[in-house]
Amino acid sequence: MMNYTLGKGNYTNWIVSEVEFSPDTLGKCESIMYLGNGYMGMRSTTEEPYLKETRNLFVSGTFNKFDEEEVTELPNLADITRLDIRVDGERFSLEFGETSEYVRQLNLKTAELTRSFTWTSPKGKALRFHFRRFVSLENLHLIGIKMDVESLTHPVAISFDSGINAQMSNSGSQHFHEGERRIFDKRFVQLIQTTIQSKIDIVMNTAHKVAVNGVEVNEPVMNMDRRKVWLSFDANLDPGDQLTMDKLTTVYTSRDKDFDHPEYDLSKLREHSLEDLRTSYEQGYEALFQAHQEAWSQKVWNAYNLEVNSKDNFDMLALRFAMYHLTIMTPAHDERMGIGAKALSGEGYKGHSFWDSEVFILPFFMYANPKVAKSLLKYRYLGLVGARKKAAENGYEGAMYPWEAAWPTDGEVTPVWGAVDIVTGKQTKIWSGFIEQHITADIANAVHQYYTITGDHEFMDQYGYEMIFDTAIFWASRLEWNEEKQEYHINQVVGPDEYKEHVDNNAFTNHMAHHNMQLAIHYADVLKEENPGRFAELNERLHLDTAYPKWQSKSEKLYLPQPREEDLVIPQDDTYLQLKEIDLTKYKNQEKVGSLFNEYNLEQVNQMQITKQADVVILQLLLEQAFSAEVKKANFDYYEPRTLHDSSLSLSSHAILANDLKEEELAYSLFKRACEIDLGPSKHSSDHGVHAASIGGIWMSAVLGFAGVRVLDGKLRINPNLPKHWDDMKFTIYWKGQPVNLTITQTSLTVKAENKETIVFETYGNTYECQDQIEINLNK
Amino acid sequence: MMNYTLGKGNYTNWIVSEVEFSPDTLGKCESIMYLGNGYMGMRSTTEEPYLKETRNLFVSGTFNKFDEEEVTELPNLADITRLDIRVDGERFSLEFGETSEYVRQLNLKTAELTRSFTWTSPKGKALRFHFRRFVSLENLHLIGIKMDVESLTHPVAISFDSGINAQMSNSGSQHFHEGERRIFDKRFVQLIQTTIQSKIDIVMNTAHKVAVNGVEVNEPVMNMDRRKVWLSFDANLDPGDQLTMDKLTTVYTSRDKDFDHPEYDLSKLREHSLEDLRTSYEQGYEALFQAHQEAWSQKVWNAYNLEVNSKDNFDMLALRFAMYHLTIMTPAHDERMGIGAKALSGEGYKGHSFWDSEVFILPFFMYANPKVAKSLLKYRYLGLVGARKKAAENGYEGAMYPWEAAWPTDGEVTPVWGAVDIVTGKQTKIWSGFIEQHITADIANAVHQYYTITGDHEFMDQYGYEMIFDTAIFWASRLEWNEEKQEYHINQVVGPDEYKEHVDNNAFTNHMAHHNMQLAIHYADVLKEENPGRFAELNERLHLDTAYPKWQSKSEKLYLPQPREEDLVIPQDDTYLQLKEIDLTKYKNQEKVGSLFNEYNLEQVNQMQITKQADVVILQLLLEQAFSAEVKKANFDYYEPRTLHDSSLSLSSHAILANDLKEEELAYSLFKRACEIDLGPSKHSSDHGVHAASIGGIWMSAVLGFAGVRVLDGKLRINPNLPKHWDDMKFTIYWKGQPVNLTITQTSLTVKAENKETIVFETYGNTYECQDQIEINLNK
Repeated sequence: MMNYTLGKGNYTNWIVSEVEFSPDTLGKCESIMYLGNGYMGMRSTTEEPYLKETRNLFVSGTFNKFDEEEVTELPNLADITRLDIRVDGERFSLEFGETSEYVRQLNLKTAELTRSFTWTSPKGKALRFHFRRFVSLENLHLIGIKMDVESLTHPVAISFDSGINAQMSNSGSQHFHEGERRIFDKRFVQLIQTTIQSKIDIVMNTAHKVAVNGVEVNEPVMNMDRRKVWLSFDANLDPGDQLTMDKLTTVYTSRDKDFDHPEYDLSKLREHSLEDLRTSYEQGYEALFQAHQEAWSQKVWNAYNLEVNSKDNFDMLALRFAMYHLTIMTPAHDERMGIGAKALSGEGYKGHSFWDSEVFILPFFMYANPKVAKSLLKYRYLGLVGARKKAAENGYEGAMYPWEAAWPTDGEVTPVWGAVDIVTGKQTKIWSGFIEQHITADIANAVHQYYTITGDHEFMDQYGYEMIFDTAIFWASRLEWNEEKQEYHINQVVGPDEYKEHVDNNAFTNHMAHHNMQLAIHYADVLKEENPGRFAELNERLHLDTAYPKWQSKSEKLYLPQPREEDLVIPQDDTYLQLKEIDLTKYKNQEKVGSLFNEYNLEQVNQMQITKQADVVILQLLLEQAFSAEVKKANFDYYEPRTLHDSSLSLSSHAILANDLKEEELAYSLFKRACEIDLGPSKHSSDHGVHAASIGGIWMSAVLGFAGVRVLDGKLRINPNLPKHWDDMKFTIYWKGQPVNLTITQTSLTVKAENKETIVFETYGNTYECQDQIEINLNK
Repeated sequence: MMNYTLGKGNYTNWIVSEVEFSPDTLGKCESIMYLGNGYMGMRSTTEEPYLKETRNLFVSGTFNKFDEEEVTELPNLADITRLDIRVDGERFSLEFGETSEYVRQLNLKTAELTRSFTWTSPKGKALRFHFRRFVSLENLHLIGIKMDVESLTHPVAISFDSGINAQMSNSGSQHFHEGERRIFDKRFVQLIQTTIQSKIDIVMNTAHKVAVNGVEVNEPVMNMDRRKVWLSFDANLDPGDQLTMDKLTTVYTSRDKDFDHPEYDLSKLREHSLEDLRTSYEQGYEALFQAHQEAWSQKVWNAYNLEVNSKDNFDMLALRFAMYHLTIMTPAHDERMGIGAKALSGEGYKGHSFWDSEVFILPFFMYANPKVAKSLLKYRYLGLVGARKKAAENGYEGAMYPWEAAWPTDGEVTPVWGAVDIVTGKQTKIWSGFIEQHITADIANAVHQYYTITGDHEFMDQYGYEMIFDTAIFWASRLEWNEEKQEYHINQVVGPDEYKEHVDNNAFTNHMAHHNMQLAIHYADVLKEENPGRFAELNERLHLDTAYPKWQSKSEKLYLPQPREEDLVIPQDDTYLQLKEIDLTKYKNQEKVGSLFNEYNLEQVNQMQITKQADVVILQLLLEQAFSAEVKKANFDYYEPRTLHDSSLSLSSHAILANDLKEEELAYSLFKRACEIDLGPSKHSSDHGVHAASIGGIWMSAVLGFAGVRVLDGKLRINPNLPKHWDDMKFTIYWKGQPVNLTITQTSLTVKAENKETIVFETYGNTYECQDQIEINLNK
């Protein structure tokens, strides 16, 4: 049972908690309460094991391919969270005995996971357990785990096994060679794993401090088994006695920037990582935790500074939840790494980056933390290697970004086979890696947005221009001439709506491709003017002089699906509007996404007006100036009823557009539903990990949606339209590198330029210049 | 809680059973009740999952090496035993609710595993469960599983998932590529796995028949996930309703003889295996089980025909238990395969063959089923390839058999690193693969024994001579000349007692090496005489004319440790008798073998008079004519108190020797202890699998020990000396290819030559010729 507003005092609206233990819904808490710091992510699996648990520890960027038939993925590292606890010789488990005062909670403010309860063993002995855990934001390599056990009623013998267990796998695929295991000084346990294909070394070190009433217990028994090393501790507790265990762990890899160089030497990595543990061990759990908490205050909460006063506390919690997750999912420390679609919280989507990053997550960083946005776009810049490879493999020119991306040079890594096809009994083929091509334009557009918001010339010179040009070169080579219509088409694609495969002229794809080429024309003009040297250099490599006229002629003749005369509906593709319609009521009210596929296979769904997620609707958000409010409304009204929101990316887009269309009630309810994708009561939707894009969407719904912050024609526009439930809202964004504080109420907008540089923006049609602070009456 | 004599009526002394469910001792029943047929072995893991379970399915000979750093092993195949059962939506588990009338039993006679109980759910609904399972001896590729559930008290919703799960691994090492999964006709589920290094294809097919009161339930939901395919069934039961599920599975591999040829084609294997399932499915569970049971009667119980009337029923059960396991562990169908030290019952020892096969298991087959003995020796003949490779790698000539053997051509496959060294914190190095060399002589001696017992000239011509000669050639090259003593030594070895590493002149090794060369001399003489053509051929390949004089001169000058004058004790090696002694009481009474290593590391144990297992004692059994009764007694009395029996091979050897020495009480108690290695109360000793050699030793203790059946100087000798507890004993052995029935009482021996050919044998010093039947008064 989830309870979201347990926090009191300083922690009001900071606590995500579970107040009743349930072995059937372990996955949910493991995912949504997962801990991390962008370097690594660790599922919040309970210390004691349960059958349906999933234990995961991922380090960003450590991709490995199990074999030639699988795609590369983030491997599941050795586990250090499991404790096999025995009470009077019997396995401790909350499935036995009686549990009371149970609370498991994630404190978003301190990024700490705690769990406490009183447990009475089947033999009637009562014990009080308290667990704590953090993954440090101060030292990215550090994990702390703490257990306190007090005997309440009887003398009791307690024992537990704890160590490092590398028998883990990714659903059976083992990414690691069994490496060396070693116990130094009978205390410092070290285990090495090396990925079997990418040959990345992982070194983990762990050490325990186990005491009863502050007195350290006897030396543990040392054990090694295949891929495992562990210590066995035991102690006898009289009533009132307190057993404490502090377990500190460091995780290092040969992919860490400090070690990923030609002189790399495993023995140095081992020494360094062990030394870090020894030093941390000296400092002790509490001091390390304090430093971690301080880092969260400074780097996250004080920086983003977002507050919402809502009649429903859940809204503030959901926004904090979003910022917490946006922080821990993002490898801000290393531009060679992207964000996984399931963040670092589960095996789902294998740690791969999708368009989710650019369309649903980057907006947060572009506005709120541009340095990180830059790092994420540099990841795509490095990914040009893979994108060019993919283009060449497909017979195209330029850069064709992979639908799913892992290590930047990998190119396309989308798996080819998916779930069972209920008609044929075979696995369904996944076409996205071949024909879901809009991502290339999505990335180019993100570069444009980033530049518009930040004014980061340096980025454009070094990376951005090249990305926009080479993606436009791809599109120019991709277009297909239709002799009959005397125009260019883009045939045989999948748009954002993946329930329509092999369609011609998907509206989203065509418009975005067109936009991509238009951006290239625009920036070519700009660059030629502003930095002819760089232009010349890129021209030499990319042949811009040849490309430029093609962008012009081809984008001009590219067919762009337009609103139909009769009802202003833009055809999602050449055939969608002619497909048959079925009653979608039961699938709209489904408990688990994708319920449709228990009755139809994808081939059949392809033949019906059923949409997985926003397609035309998201187009109308990304290129909002291209469509009138009337057209937007017509398309929202047409497509939403046909959309199952089977993708977690869908609801927040609809929420923003609904708010734009002044459908405030609907917008707020869609925002709520978007928040509930991970935070809601659905028991299993987060089992394979949190929904990174949906989490970005929570923030977008609030800031781009309710606060109405957008970029239009290169200008900042702020059209606030808070939900009725919200009294006010404040947050900091960066505009052209300057922090700007916004405070919004139902009737006013206050803009404060923190650095006292002039900020120009538009609100409801009026342009304002603000050098210090300005308050605007919204007169709603 | 184990109960061994539950069987009644026809099944008296045929049943191994557990009468109380315990989640902490799952491993024991999984192992000792495992099912198999030599082609495959399947642990008897409960259908519903538990945390500490181990699910294993092994197919003989399908060795694979996970990577260059691991040794080849039998991979754990996809699982078909697990059923995820939900009652009213909640996980069914005997850890919850109330269980009564619980019995899990292995019926040795029918080779069927059953489990039944009444379970009352936490909500108070009572259900009666009955499970059955067999691995067919009639169709080696077939597995049958059956579940019956009756609702006793309330209407209840029952659902379960069942299919093929290839997320299994060997303690984390994944041996398989993820292969194709397919569901034919919404019923026949097929999953393919291919080993990643040896490229063996495994095809498994499964089909269900699920009915309520005989009426088949609705189509199940089909599911696929990574490495998994399964069906979800559900049904509603009213009180009295009976749900039945029959699940039939076929397992085929590209290593099967029928498919392991150059024209092999996976699609044909798939078709054939699926066709076998379809045919079996037509026949149905009951008919298939009947055929299986019939095969056990004919091929096993009626063939071996062993009966013991003991005051303790356990003795007969233990002997049946031994014959059951000797049958299912042995790949009698394929001479390219040997017997694993843990049979096919667990990951322990990786499916590798040790000297266990020749010294502790082959005697059973040589006497009771010579065809199978021949197949096992042919496995060693094929292994000459690997043995020659090993000799060459070590700078020796001839054939040096690997300490651990897998696929015959693999050569040495002993892993190099073992358990933790409590002093250094590193893994302990395992030296056996390098320097435990006696196995080469053990195999040569087994060939000699086989020939003596069977008179199988053909085998000798084709295989046996070559094995004996080439092993002798190895030994001649292995000996080291000691200038000072003017004799040959064998230095730096490990004998059977693995607690003494790097010793010089291990008595067992030196004597057996000498014996090996003597056998070669003898058989060279015989062959030259009897089959000069074959001799010439072998001479050309093995240069026997050069080897022969070396065997003579070297074996003559090989130092053979002799009884000391003062106490007749034969020094186990050059230093043993000078080592310090410690009080071994607590280790002798240990609950778990190897407890010594919680206090000492191997280096320290090396320096003390502590023996892991019979060393000089087993030498005195294998070469019994070489030592007088007096010497045997002196050595038994000296070494036994210093022996921890930390190897399961030890007790039966001691039992036989004790009986020879007329220490009948001791012999009987050692026999009991040998039986209890797997069948006894120890909770965890069988977790990693049964003890194949110890199981062979149970039979040896009875037939070679109490019945006194031996070969001495090429002659059959029968000196029975039954334990006081035994009234009589009968069994069939084969002598020179002829079946001979023996009946032994406390006072008589009756020998019956079944084929009426003359059998010559000796009993207590007198020679008898028996053509029909002879009864001898033992006059004890």
